Amino acid sequence: MRFTSEQRLDDGILEREFTLGDIPGTLWTPDSASASAPVPLILMSHNNGLPKADPRLRARARSTAACGYAVVTIDAAGCGDRPHTAAAEQARADLRRAMQAGEPADRIDEIFEALIGPLVENAVPDWLTTLDAALDQPGIGGPVGYTSWTALGIRLATVEPRIKAAGFFAGGYVPRARREEARQLTIPLLMLLQWDDRGNPRERALDLFDAFGSEEKTLHANLGGHVGTPWFELEDGNRFFGRHLK
Amino acid sequence: MRFTSEQRLDDGILEREFTLGDIPGTLWTPDSASASAPVPLILMSHNNGLPKADPRLRARARSTAACGYAVVTIDAAGCGDRPHTAAAEQARADLRRAMQAGEPADRIDEIFEALIGPLVENAVPDWLTTLDAALDQPGIGGPVGYTSWTALGIRLATVEPRIKAAGFFAGGYVPRARREEARQLTIPLLMLLQWDDRGNPRERALDLFDAFGSEEKTLHANLGGHVGTPWFELEDGNRFFGRHLK
Repeated sequence: MRFTSEQRLDDGILEREFTLGDIPGTLWTPDSASASAPVPLILMSHNNGLPKADPRLRARARSTAACGYAVVTIDAAGCGDRPHTAAAEQARADLRRAMQAGEPADRIDEIFEALIGPLVENAVPDWLTTLDAALDQPGIGGPVGYTSWTALGIRLATVEPRIKAAGFFAGGYVPRARREEARQLTIPLLMLLQWDDRGNPRERALDLFDAFGSEEKTLHANLGGHVGTPWFELEDGNRFFGRHLK
Repeated sequence: MRFTSEQRLDDGILEREFTLGDIPGTLWTPDSASASAPVPLILMSHNNGLPKADPRLRARARSTAACGYAVVTIDAAGCGDRPHTAAAEQARADLRRAMQAGEPADRIDEIFEALIGPLVENAVPDWLTTLDAALDQPGIGGPVGYTSWTALGIRLATVEPRIKAAGFFAGGYVPRARREEARQLTIPLLMLLQWDDRGNPRERALDLFDAFGSEEKTLHANLGGHVGTPWFELEDGNRFFGRHLK
């Protein structure tokens, strides 16, 4: 983890940009973190359409770090500002065309599968590398939490036992292989759903919530579209991690 | 409001039993409540099957009062330990018989309608009388919150503009007239659903959540049966009231 810039924020948070091989990332750590009192780590993913520099993501990361967590985000392979594969570009173009043409739902599904399936699989190694490197930093210990991109989180929590709790957002389009895996998850989950998120069909998100194998799973649904999540959900999410990581 | 007994609890809460005409009730007030700093009032109903002395209800009331609210509960007409109408007894017997015989869902619905419809309508005047009397007590001011029994809460919030926020539990069987009214509600709502509550079909509860007219409405769903609500939901409920009543 090679730090390329750092900024000390007003709320006692150190924000550092880093590179880790090809992976660009940002790490937030609270002043309270020290070798004698390491803080838990939260992996804050974002879905492929947003870069890690997205202001809402940064605001969430700062707020979570201020609750006593180290927070890390990256642009994984194929995501954010990283180069997109030719296949992903093709699938995005197909998706636009199919939606404009009003093609049937199962055709749209197929294109989503072709886009999101490989994107998740390609992103996983970068996130696991980042998890290891972040835990090697002084002042950062386990356990590890995960938040945001549902499809990626299902895969990561399946393969990585150090992840002890996860918050998932939306979850309307999740590749088939990840929906199958959802039944195997056993860690505590908080799933956040926007009731009128047109890009994430409600019924599918509810079916996914139903499928998770975890004994402790909570769904929070709020009125409004994809970007309309109320601010108090961020606080609820931090409290959820507080129950399971501290 | 004639107080018949009082008990000072360890956490600085005064718990008083009262009668108000025919209505037996319990009022919890925090020590912090005073004429110069009145606390908001929360009406904590319970569904007709439980008396106001139910230990879980009392524990919830104490915990909410400790967050700086006056909390009142009653056995309304036909509810809890109050005499049941002959029609309600008949409907309860019909319900048991119909369920044992595995009668079709629409027959079960009809019996629920015959039982719950009048029960709600008869309970409303007692709750409104209680609201007025509680607000007349020193140290108790507005605004007013409501929590628990969904069907009753829809009716109360429709007719009583002093109720500014409501928490609803379950909501699988709500009389037709109340489901219609749900669309007219505009106050902030927190609806709490147990995902595997066999007595409260999930789809109906989700449809009801969808129907509420409120711009701020949040659904919390947790795994488990009717009495399996996790403890942290009580804290979430108190924070919900904190956002809207304080």
